[in-house]
Amino acid sequence: MNLNSADAAFTALLAQNLPAGSLSETEPRHLEEPRGRWQGRAGPMVRPRTTEEVARIVTLAADARVGIIPYGGGTGLVGGQISPEGPLPLILSLERINALRDIYAQENVLICEAGCVLADIQSAAEEVDRLFPLSLASEGSARIGGNLATNAGGTAVLRYGNARDLCLGVEAVLPDGQIWHGLKRLRKDNTGYDLRNLLIGSEGTLGIITAAALKLSPRPAQSGTAFFVVPSPAAALSLLALARGQLGEMVSGFELINGQGLRFLSEVLPNVRQPFETPPEWCVLIEVGLVSGMDPASALERVFEEASAQGLALDGLIAQNAQQSKDFWSVREHIPEANKRIGAIISSDVSLPLGCIAGFITRARQLIAEVGAFRINCFGHLGDGNLHFNIFPVPGETAAQHNDKRAALQRVVHDLVHDLDGSVSAEHGIGRLKVDDLQRYGDPAKLSAMRAVKAALDPVGIMNPGALFKT
Amino acid sequence: MNLNSADAAFTALLAQNLPAGSLSETEPRHLEEPRGRWQGRAGPMVRPRTTEEVARIVTLAADARVGIIPYGGGTGLVGGQISPEGPLPLILSLERINALRDIYAQENVLICEAGCVLADIQSAAEEVDRLFPLSLASEGSARIGGNLATNAGGTAVLRYGNARDLCLGVEAVLPDGQIWHGLKRLRKDNTGYDLRNLLIGSEGTLGIITAAALKLSPRPAQSGTAFFVVPSPAAALSLLALARGQLGEMVSGFELINGQGLRFLSEVLPNVRQPFETPPEWCVLIEVGLVSGMDPASALERVFEEASAQGLALDGLIAQNAQQSKDFWSVREHIPEANKRIGAIISSDVSLPLGCIAGFITRARQLIAEVGAFRINCFGHLGDGNLHFNIFPVPGETAAQHNDKRAALQRVVHDLVHDLDGSVSAEHGIGRLKVDDLQRYGDPAKLSAMRAVKAALDPVGIMNPGALFKT
Repeated sequence: MNLNSADAAFTALLAQNLPAGSLSETEPRHLEEPRGRWQGRAGPMVRPRTTEEVARIVTLAADARVGIIPYGGGTGLVGGQISPEGPLPLILSLERINALRDIYAQENVLICEAGCVLADIQSAAEEVDRLFPLSLASEGSARIGGNLATNAGGTAVLRYGNARDLCLGVEAVLPDGQIWHGLKRLRKDNTGYDLRNLLIGSEGTLGIITAAALKLSPRPAQSGTAFFVVPSPAAALSLLALARGQLGEMVSGFELINGQGLRFLSEVLPNVRQPFETPPEWCVLIEVGLVSGMDPASALERVFEEASAQGLALDGLIAQNAQQSKDFWSVREHIPEANKRIGAIISSDVSLPLGCIAGFITRARQLIAEVGAFRINCFGHLGDGNLHFNIFPVPGETAAQHNDKRAALQRVVHDLVHDLDGSVSAEHGIGRLKVDDLQRYGDPAKLSAMRAVKAALDPVGIMNPGALFKT
Repeated sequence: MNLNSADAAFTALLAQNLPAGSLSETEPRHLEEPRGRWQGRAGPMVRPRTTEEVARIVTLAADARVGIIPYGGGTGLVGGQISPEGPLPLILSLERINALRDIYAQENVLICEAGCVLADIQSAAEEVDRLFPLSLASEGSARIGGNLATNAGGTAVLRYGNARDLCLGVEAVLPDGQIWHGLKRLRKDNTGYDLRNLLIGSEGTLGIITAAALKLSPRPAQSGTAFFVVPSPAAALSLLALARGQLGEMVSGFELINGQGLRFLSEVLPNVRQPFETPPEWCVLIEVGLVSGMDPASALERVFEEASAQGLALDGLIAQNAQQSKDFWSVREHIPEANKRIGAIISSDVSLPLGCIAGFITRARQLIAEVGAFRINCFGHLGDGNLHFNIFPVPGETAAQHNDKRAALQRVVHDLVHDLDGSVSAEHGIGRLKVDDLQRYGDPAKLSAMRAVKAALDPVGIMNPGALFKT
């Protein structure tokens, strides 16, 4: 692809074509990512204020053959926002393109720019008595442009879908500098190829999303939360079917939690209030959002009764008020932080056909035991078939020793996932972390179509070079 | 693109490479379409039995530069399945690739081949107590491959989404003959570009879908149906918001019906039992699918009470049993047939932002009145913003006279839709009917990206030449 570095001549050219103050140097935070795996290189950063400025920048970069790294909230977990090598790229931060353009409450549509922080969008929806259901741990700093570029998932996918399901239209700058004005507020639009979904999840490699028309939902009249202790992951799945049988789409969240995660919490975050005195081996956190006239506690009790009668639930706690609901969710939300504090995590983000999950957990444990002794914290969005299967050293083992086994362990997990028709990246994307995995496990016809699409839309290869594909 | 005709030499080559009986001549039904606008030309047809045979055919066609028209149930309404001109193509019928491969009831997944008839898929799902919610007038003959290729809509989109929302994965033959084995049963899979959604809705121009993993839903414990008379389309939209406020996702269908449609029914299909003695100017058909423990009649009564108190409903009829529900739906389902019998229909399939619908209906009537006197039957899937705005001659006017005004009237409607940020093809697609509309109203950046993607994946241009793009 023969890209050039974003050198002084290029930044001078940019400066000439943009308002004063658009250009700066990267700050350290732009060169780091949450997992600490990659380190970017200091260099030029541009913070345009409008979509038209983005278009101008992209056009100049295409002419100069300079790579662009689109930068949102910097919360991605696969290194898509970091350029550790190759010709120095331009970091294009969307942080100033952050207006909430319009809310159409009656239409259940909100239009905002890429730089809006996810939590702010949630709040704006709430102010007009609507719900923007995308919900994830980093929502306080993640920006919607990045959420869409990576097709973010989170805890409400079961009911409301991934980021792509919550987006009706996008405005984007394509790699040739053209602006696609695609901010449709339509539920149905069959006029040609689905470019919206092509851009969503393309991780900045096919263009820069600058604004989006987002789908809001009515807010459930009342919500309820419960912890149910289950005898096994298989039982948890049957419990999910039972709950959906009783409550249909009103089951909003269904999270599997392993005893190891609760023990880690006790160890490193003892202030997080735990639901059970003795951590059960498996439990699920259920969230329901009900229509008016239904009582959450009784609805959850009815689920528990039936589940208990079928041997699917051994114990249960139903939140009695909003504070207790919050406490329950706090347990789930602190598990990633506890993992981080335990350290030396070998993480994964896999999805499986629902029918294969229980078998996967058992078999993965066996295969990992063949490699050595480890602590495993397997948790995740069970309703979506999405597990975070994380492997930690046993006490006494050093991080360095553990790290030596990283490649082998990840191979074991990913090979098994692949054999079971699962995905080695359920919700975090490919970024730079899983470029090799994509090649190894990807369908050859799909990969060649992807390369053809990339070459067609970004022939110079300026958009996020190094993400998804080897440069 | 310089395609060649599917001549005797080419069919001989195909015959050598396929099992006996694969090749035949087209039958008249393959050369016609429901609207009677296009006439195909008699020529060779191939009916492969396996995906591998499709791949072989596509490879040979690409080598020989022969166009392929993928053929499903032949029910498309925009001529995507008919080749009226240009080098004679090969008709590739999917009718023999029609196995139901697997049902994973616990996973809510069904895997079937492209040639499966939609109604058979619905029945197969019902047999395992699940719902495949895609539902449309032609379901008795439409095949799922075509439903996906055109991203079909129908009456349950409000709750369950379009065809693309009901598909987890596809198997497809790409224009170079490669088979993409993409039959994932996953709710989350962020491993690269969303080729599935690129193929869905591409109307056979980027490849041939040969099988799909479809998303099933739990069947609602009980259903209810009601007709509410509303004072206006604006009131109908407020009624929808009210119903969804009370019942959330359990509102499955919300169809707007105009008095003209009911009068047409009386005129040409007098045996269809009508709900009201005097056809009201506007009414809506509401379908709800409730969880166990909720009574449909009381739920609908509660909606009616509140709607009535707010002046949103003037009269109402709630179905008291399954037969009555069926009768109510029969009214809605016979409207297209009545339109057809009235004849000389100038139809449209548009969608609008919900907030623009009431204004659109008023303004479109005004603009059309400026052209002349007509009868207008405006009905559709109101919850999705999807209207079929159909224009008929007044009695005494001949079909030929009416036809002369077709282009002008369609331009009036489509220009207004475009001004209001709507879509000139909500659920039927572009096919051959709206190729010019796509060029006129399409976003230039999107169109150039579409052309780039088409050229990248189908450089010879063999896939459904003449659909979506001018050849």
